[in-house]
Amino acid sequence: MPTNSPLNRKLRMGLIGGGQGAFIGRVHATAGVLDNRAALVAGALSSDAAKAKASAADYDIPADRAYGSVKEMVAAEGKRPDKVDFVSVATPNHTHFEIAKTFVEAGFNVICDKPMTFDLAQAEELLKIVEKSGVVFAVTHNYTGYPLVRQAREMILNGDLGEINATRSNYIQGWLRTRLEAESQKQAAWRTDPSKSGIAGCFGDIGTHAYNLGRYMTGLLPKEISGHLKIFAEGRALDDYGTALVRYENGALGTVTASQISHGRENDLFIEIDGTKAALQWRQENPNELIVRKNGEPHKIYTRNGGPYLGAAAGAASRLPSGHPEAFFEAFANVYGAAFDAMVKKASGEKVESVNTVYPNVYDGVEGMLFITQVVASSKENGAWLPFHHPKSRK
Amino acid sequence: MPTNSPLNRKLRMGLIGGGQGAFIGRVHATAGVLDNRAALVAGALSSDAAKAKASAADYDIPADRAYGSVKEMVAAEGKRPDKVDFVSVATPNHTHFEIAKTFVEAGFNVICDKPMTFDLAQAEELLKIVEKSGVVFAVTHNYTGYPLVRQAREMILNGDLGEINATRSNYIQGWLRTRLEAESQKQAAWRTDPSKSGIAGCFGDIGTHAYNLGRYMTGLLPKEISGHLKIFAEGRALDDYGTALVRYENGALGTVTASQISHGRENDLFIEIDGTKAALQWRQENPNELIVRKNGEPHKIYTRNGGPYLGAAAGAASRLPSGHPEAFFEAFANVYGAAFDAMVKKASGEKVESVNTVYPNVYDGVEGMLFITQVVASSKENGAWLPFHHPKSRK
Amino acid sequence: MPTNSPLNRKLRMGLIGGGQGAFIGRVHATAGVLDNRAALVAGALSSDAAKAKASAADYDIPADRAYGSVKEMVAAEGKRPDKVDFVSVATPNHTHFEIAKTFVEAGFNVICDKPMTFDLAQAEELLKIVEKSGVVFAVTHNYTGYPLVRQAREMILNGDLGEINATRSNYIQGWLRTRLEAESQKQAAWRTDPSKSGIAGCFGDIGTHAYNLGRYMTGLLPKEISGHLKIFAEGRALDDYGTALVRYENGALGTVTASQISHGRENDLFIEIDGTKAALQWRQENPNELIVRKNGEPHKIYTRNGGPYLGAAAGAASRLPSGHPEAFFEAFANVYGAAFDAMVKKASGEKVESVNTVYPNVYDGVEGMLFITQVVASSKENGAWLPFHHPKSRK
Amino acid sequence: MPTNSPLNRKLRMGLIGGGQGAFIGRVHATAGVLDNRAALVAGALSSDAAKAKASAADYDIPADRAYGSVKEMVAAEGKRPDKVDFVSVATPNHTHFEIAKTFVEAGFNVICDKPMTFDLAQAEELLKIVEKSGVVFAVTHNYTGYPLVRQAREMILNGDLGEINATRSNYIQGWLRTRLEAESQKQAAWRTDPSKSGIAGCFGDIGTHAYNLGRYMTGLLPKEISGHLKIFAEGRALDDYGTALVRYENGALGTVTASQISHGRENDLFIEIDGTKAALQWRQENPNELIVRKNGEPHKIYTRNGGPYLGAAAGAASRLPSGHPEAFFEAFANVYGAAFDAMVKKASGEKVESVNTVYPNVYDGVEGMLFITQVVASSKENGAWLPFHHPKSRK
Repeated sequence: MPTNSPLNRKLRMGLIGGGQGAFIGRVHATAGVLDNRAALVAGALSSDAAKAKASAADYDIPADRAYGSVKEMVAAEGKRPDKVDFVSVATPNHTHFEIAKTFVEAGFNVICDKPMTFDLAQAEELLKIVEKSGVVFAVTHNYTGYPLVRQAREMILNGDLGEINATRSNYIQGWLRTRLEAESQKQAAWRTDPSKSGIAGCFGDIGTHAYNLGRYMTGLLPKEISGHLKIFAEGRALDDYGTALVRYENGALGTVTASQISHGRENDLFIEIDGTKAALQWRQENPNELIVRKNGEPHKIYTRNGGPYLGAAAGAASRLPSGHPEAFFEAFANVYGAAFDAMVKKASGEKVESVNTVYPNVYDGVEGMLFITQVVASSKENGAWLPFHHPKSRK
Repeated sequence: MPTNSPLNRKLRMGLIGGGQGAFIGRVHATAGVLDNRAALVAGALSSDAAKAKASAADYDIPADRAYGSVKEMVAAEGKRPDKVDFVSVATPNHTHFEIAKTFVEAGFNVICDKPMTFDLAQAEELLKIVEKSGVVFAVTHNYTGYPLVRQAREMILNGDLGEINATRSNYIQGWLRTRLEAESQKQAAWRTDPSKSGIAGCFGDIGTHAYNLGRYMTGLLPKEISGHLKIFAEGRALDDYGTALVRYENGALGTVTASQISHGRENDLFIEIDGTKAALQWRQENPNELIVRKNGEPHKIYTRNGGPYLGAAAGAASRLPSGHPEAFFEAFANVYGAAFDAMVKKASGEKVESVNTVYPNVYDGVEGMLFITQVVASSKENGAWLPFHHPKSRK
Repeated sequence: MPTNSPLNRKLRMGLIGGGQGAFIGRVHATAGVLDNRAALVAGALSSDAAKAKASAADYDIPADRAYGSVKEMVAAEGKRPDKVDFVSVATPNHTHFEIAKTFVEAGFNVICDKPMTFDLAQAEELLKIVEKSGVVFAVTHNYTGYPLVRQAREMILNGDLGEINATRSNYIQGWLRTRLEAESQKQAAWRTDPSKSGIAGCFGDIGTHAYNLGRYMTGLLPKEISGHLKIFAEGRALDDYGTALVRYENGALGTVTASQISHGRENDLFIEIDGTKAALQWRQENPNELIVRKNGEPHKIYTRNGGPYLGAAAGAASRLPSGHPEAFFEAFANVYGAAFDAMVKKASGEKVESVNTVYPNVYDGVEGMLFITQVVASSKENGAWLPFHHPKSRK
Repeated sequence: MPTNSPLNRKLRMGLIGGGQGAFIGRVHATAGVLDNRAALVAGALSSDAAKAKASAADYDIPADRAYGSVKEMVAAEGKRPDKVDFVSVATPNHTHFEIAKTFVEAGFNVICDKPMTFDLAQAEELLKIVEKSGVVFAVTHNYTGYPLVRQAREMILNGDLGEINATRSNYIQGWLRTRLEAESQKQAAWRTDPSKSGIAGCFGDIGTHAYNLGRYMTGLLPKEISGHLKIFAEGRALDDYGTALVRYENGALGTVTASQISHGRENDLFIEIDGTKAALQWRQENPNELIVRKNGEPHKIYTRNGGPYLGAAAGAASRLPSGHPEAFFEAFANVYGAAFDAMVKKASGEKVESVNTVYPNVYDGVEGMLFITQVVASSKENGAWLPFHHPKSRK
């Protein structure tokens, strides 16, 4: 089928952030173009204008579209007939809001890294701006892009697991065991700095992913939350470990545990879900297996593309035969792919669903900020149960 | 070396419980004799005298030592020159106290199933009786008998993991997903009946094991506890799911999650421990591997008997070369083995350590009952943090 | 049920070998009594009379039944009314024949370690003696005792896998990487000494197990064999590595690879079997899982006792609920258990099946010796395909 | 660093094959551009001119560079100032030679799928043409691109494993269990058709990969080979199962087993290597782990990017922190990346190594064809040992 039919051309991507030394900007650049559905053609790659321009060659971005600032970029791209179709925001948390707002208000679609904003107030304001604008707005809770995560979501929403009683989400890392931030490690520095990361450290960076994964798979609506955050690396300013308990509206109990201080652990995002009819588990470090269990039956391992027992979602998110592993970039690209579908539809004048989307969206971004806000507040109140419900949450 | 040197004979074992249809009694019988250090020679195998006597042939127990009641057994054995050296109590929870008390007061060593008693008050009273008597008293927190659990304990107590910051213990089962108790399944019936099981269901049966495992491995002293129990099988009288949070005196945070309602899960007791210098994990369903991790080093898999990198404890608890798996019975037998060592010493007139033992003892039994008591109380108070410290806990 | 009904008593076990420093003798002693169906009451524990008698106390064998030689034991036991019901032969390979012959001819049941004899001629002679005597004779290809090995066998014989096309058996160890035999390590010394071990080293010790496992599971009749043996530890007298190819009568192709020189490998006996309808795999280091696969279906993990999807054999060979692992000793005890069933039947005057038995028997022992003979011969002829069929093989 | 410094621009890629319904062409297109180092700008996407042109829109290839044939493409591209820097040949085996020859002789760099040609004679001729031309010529033995495969190679060539004694390579699939070729499944049809696939089926398609993987990791030079091929799907024209034994010049023994008929197996390429100092294993279905073992030490799991214990090769082939899995496309892209390095060097006038390259090259392609030739010949001669050495093999 022609690329991005009926648009029949690659989408034009702009990148914000991603300058020399960056990590997540390079991921966006790779994931965005992985399926030949987009080309990276412009960027404001750093908040430092000189560095921004110097970094353009790394991505083969032409010099005239290598901008020194977001402001400059919006102005210049706005005037081009071949302006970018969307921008990817891959900068530290505290800058997301202003950048996203600027592009959204100028009518550009946006793919924003998570957590969506610096605080909840910004998130709620951004939501209003996005709703008003009608642009496609995705938040890269990238783990939702794994084929078997989507398979799990499809099964649960279909009722294959029955009523959901319990979720156990964990995201366990070890790289911040020591105070790397004191050694000027760039990735560590901004993540542990409250003026850049916001009120949460570990729970903002990865706890949100763990929470979002369960929410995405199950569709359960949260009701109350109790948080217990810890700082184990002496002298650190933000949490580096913790557990939250979530009570869902249907009576289910969720636990969300996140760690940055577990020696040798890499990116061990792991979830188990118990339903009345079946249970399942999935692990991002081994993402091409989904284990499904029912009492009295053999344990079953579903593979990404393993056959007709799978629903439509898993196959649609796969590019290769099962056994040829697909991984992080492909999942990230699947979030892009779902957003591309919406952009192409919108560009073709079709109506586009904005709330109940396959990709995580601005509503999920708001819920993520509420999660952070209430976990931190509860933890300060000795784990008191606080309300955890946002009127704008997707049902 | 001669059997039980310097005693130079097998120990004589009596079994309480284990009659037709029983599960754990058969386990005690098998584990007790596994190493040819004991012989099962007497028993009161059921609270029903006729059934007790009828069951004796199943164990090849001679008719004259197949007793119709505990009372009868104590009286008769007490008079024999070849009286049993110890009894194993493998009956439902609510009967442990009376049985154990009777044998302890008569001077018999006791190996008691867990939870040790019906409630905390009984546990504290039993502790006094045991202290007064001087008998060897073990509680079968059997998972402590796995060689690699002992290896983990040895490493942590040696400081190989540094200061312990976090423990995550889980015991996940699925067999009580539906109300088997309503179908007269014997194992389910007493476990879900408050008059037999006590105030906790899942947390009494397996949550205690999960807590005990972390406590045994780390030696951390608990300070406060917050519990969140659920009943997911409609109509059930006791918890079948829950999570507890434990604050340890050194500032560490522990989580204990137990489930009986997770479809297809068998006996998945799983623990992860994070220290400042290293982290480890162990899983009972794959008990011959202990995974040890340090940042910047390969993940390491220690095997039960794998070589000189192990401490003394693991090898001492193994019977076979690594790669030939040892499992549940062997671990259970290791708890017996450590208690046998004490019994032989005592019988030989040596002084015997009673608090800081390799086998779980009456002090651990008391702490287990306190755990149950406070988890249930906290859960009723919406998860309030309650004190969790017993003056008799081992240090 | 009463022990060994209708015999209603424990069987009396005699142990040959197992003296101080032994490995496999202790295994037989433990496995033999594991289920309380037998008691170890007599033995000739070493070929050195003094050591034999000195070792008796290690097993709590009474002094008057601790014999200095096999000859002495046969004579003395033969006269006792409570004579042993069977003897277990746990001595080096070159002594099996004489010992087994002696006991069989005296009418005792025998459980013999493998390989059954020193060479094929002895095996064939022993078979005749056993056939003539009518005793129960088992060979401890102990891996056949694992519940899920029996499940695999049951499934294949039932046709669940369709026609079998291919088997891949591997037994990979590393402990003989260096010439331990040059360091007087006892276990290494006899295994690498042609005068004790026979014509094969690695292939006699573990290659036979790997071959037998596939044979036991599939029931396929072998036709031709091609062998390729290597000695990698310089100066060693017998093979320590190799691969054999087996052509079965039905056209299937089998591979059998065994190694004693693979660093860090423990007892990795691993088998894969491909049928026209399904495929399966099993690994002894993780024996409580059997993986079954069919195109277009999820991979399935069968657990030892996991539910009604299992056949009768697995459950009958299990003692514990699934998830509580059972392992090497329990499997070994299952071979004993099947032989005990036959002994009890025979003692009760019932007719006993001797060829198509659940336990490996003298016919399998002969086939094992033929396997060794032909692999070694083929290897000397540069891997030429040689006949591999014995008229006495079980069908 | 600027893209492809000092060339400072993306390379221009042409694709041969990959038209509608193709599999491997899409893989080349994705892998080729994954790192933003190349752009797909031209192609002859099918041997059917109409289909070739119709498929161009799927890749956003402009109509004027969508060629109806290879001949047309060479002619047209040859005249353009912005002509393609390289072409990727992703067509059935029997067409590789003519296509590759045409482009090489016209001075274009080529990346060719495997097996390199239809038969050995073609391979040897192509080698001469490539040598004469001086172009960069890579063969996509894509599994060599996995970071931990390169780590294994680096370790072995450094001597960390000591002398290599044994390799065991397996590539196990199940998708051709039934005769899909009879159902007009396109992927199955050409692979099982001797006029398109060549003399081998399974061994040409995946056996070559399994052999190449061991060869790449160890650098061992082969000396003799014995092959045993089978056809298990009735009526199939080419082998779908088999085992080959390889004797290496240093005395090592290799086994290569490949299957297309193992139910439920996906792309299970698995290798174990035994050295005198250490052993290792790697599995493509779980490619981010390399297990390294030494007697007396814990088993060690190396992860892709896990730390300073790794050599330079693994890190250089990784894009993400460890724990974020990278997989098939990234490995494939790593083969491209190494070839790109050579193309950039060459375009910049530097001398380029053509034999001892990081990417598999035309010499490896020739050795692969010799492997196929001799396995098939040996199999026809009942597994006779045949010479397996090519004078052009890389040392």
